[in-house]
Amino acid sequence: MLKFTEEFELDRGVSLQIDVKDVLHVERSEFQDLKVFDTVPFGTMLTLDGVIQLTEFDNYAYHEMITHVAMQAHKEAKRALIIGGGDGGVVHELLKYDNIEEIVLCELDPAVVRVCKEFFPEFAYVFTHPKVKVVNEDGAKFIKEKPNYYDVVIVDSSDPIGPAIVLFEPEFYQNCHKALSDDGILITQSESMFYHEKFIRELQAHSREIFPIAEYFYTMVPTYPSGTIGFSFCSKQYTKDENLDINETKKIKTRYYNHAIHTASFCLPQFIMEKK
Amino acid sequence: MLKFTEEFELDRGVSLQIDVKDVLHVERSEFQDLKVFDTVPFGTMLTLDGVIQLTEFDNYAYHEMITHVAMQAHKEAKRALIIGGGDGGVVHELLKYDNIEEIVLCELDPAVVRVCKEFFPEFAYVFTHPKVKVVNEDGAKFIKEKPNYYDVVIVDSSDPIGPAIVLFEPEFYQNCHKALSDDGILITQSESMFYHEKFIRELQAHSREIFPIAEYFYTMVPTYPSGTIGFSFCSKQYTKDENLDINETKKIKTRYYNHAIHTASFCLPQFIMEKK
Repeated sequence: MLKFTEEFELDRGVSLQIDVKDVLHVERSEFQDLKVFDTVPFGTMLTLDGVIQLTEFDNYAYHEMITHVAMQAHKEAKRALIIGGGDGGVVHELLKYDNIEEIVLCELDPAVVRVCKEFFPEFAYVFTHPKVKVVNEDGAKFIKEKPNYYDVVIVDSSDPIGPAIVLFEPEFYQNCHKALSDDGILITQSESMFYHEKFIRELQAHSREIFPIAEYFYTMVPTYPSGTIGFSFCSKQYTKDENLDINETKKIKTRYYNHAIHTASFCLPQFIMEKK
Repeated sequence: MLKFTEEFELDRGVSLQIDVKDVLHVERSEFQDLKVFDTVPFGTMLTLDGVIQLTEFDNYAYHEMITHVAMQAHKEAKRALIIGGGDGGVVHELLKYDNIEEIVLCELDPAVVRVCKEFFPEFAYVFTHPKVKVVNEDGAKFIKEKPNYYDVVIVDSSDPIGPAIVLFEPEFYQNCHKALSDDGILITQSESMFYHEKFIRELQAHSREIFPIAEYFYTMVPTYPSGTIGFSFCSKQYTKDENLDINETKKIKTRYYNHAIHTASFCLPQFIMEKK
């Protein structure tokens, strides 16, 4: 049996090894190596530079939580910007809301969109949806274009190594703050509590200098390093749950997200709660 | 670099591969293969029949949650029985409570206790603690010895394959019910929501026939399959959190457990909440 091995990080010394039925696609784009596998345990799987991005099996746990926590915390978001997220999974979740009027997907690498359209067909419809605009630009630059415009900004990035590193810097968070409307919410992919505690503490510290409300929440994704991944919740006005449940029209069909887990996902293990 | 590879389950096709500095111990006991590794990412690691049981790095996330949810949900537990748990980690957590008077550790395999004493020295003190009695017997038989006696029973077992399979059967749960005092609580290791949904549904169904209160909660353990593992909370009287916070003497030092995560750990993803 062919096996895929992910080295989670250069020095960590742990990797997930996955049985592969078939290698469906291999490509070197302008920005990165793309590979698509048909795996035994997780169905179709996309890797970028050897790092697992999504699988058929568990991407819902990631896409639902990076999207719905913001959408339900916000009173009625109309305009959303996604930076990264070229697979279309976040757009798919956003389109569950009638109140969403405009979604801009800013994915640097057009190859990601093209490959995902082919191999993750359940999301392919989003790229031609009338509410959706796809731009292939650098998110760190694009975020400066429309001040005070977006109700929700979701940074669905790869890890803070290589091209995505700029998306974790204070200047980028400042620019996200400017791009958001007066009651806007920013959500960013923010790594694993077990493997990146120091990184998360620094990210939270600089988020709190920029946003009045900055918290951390998490989801569980078996194919990601340590099995969990977290997000920064940065909000100009709304707390994480003050608008929960008030609007019945915000009921949506999900496999991971629900209102109980929305609130619970902000309850963190003691080691990350303690000041150091 | 030497690598340890765990096959999570025979047919799943996913395994964790871990860099190993040194193999510290190899032994075939009467019941199973024991191995101790010095690993690069997780420090000392014990495997039984090739399955990771605990590592220095993350065992606290498991031991704290399997122990403190019961101990804090119970008003004032005095007598505890652990079935399995030969590493001593659960005893270590139980001994944080002044109200605990008697702990019986029923570990089938004396080799597990001997090996863990040597390689996990932080727990070694528990085996000679005056409140603790160690018996090397079959837990499924031992549970029948003292009816209406224990305030808390914790089943810290390996997976439901091989010798531990009897610990997941309705008859065993019946016997645990009998062994518990009138306000007793049973906690059992109950696998991963992502990998064992059907198994968990069946376990919950038969628990609910035996206990008036039967719920499922989880913790995150990076070195366990899928990165999460759950527990059954089976209670004769107390709900999961009615006694939380009322007794200041129950404040204990932890790295994972706190009262917020106690309640949050019962909030489950939508797919497992829905009736099927």
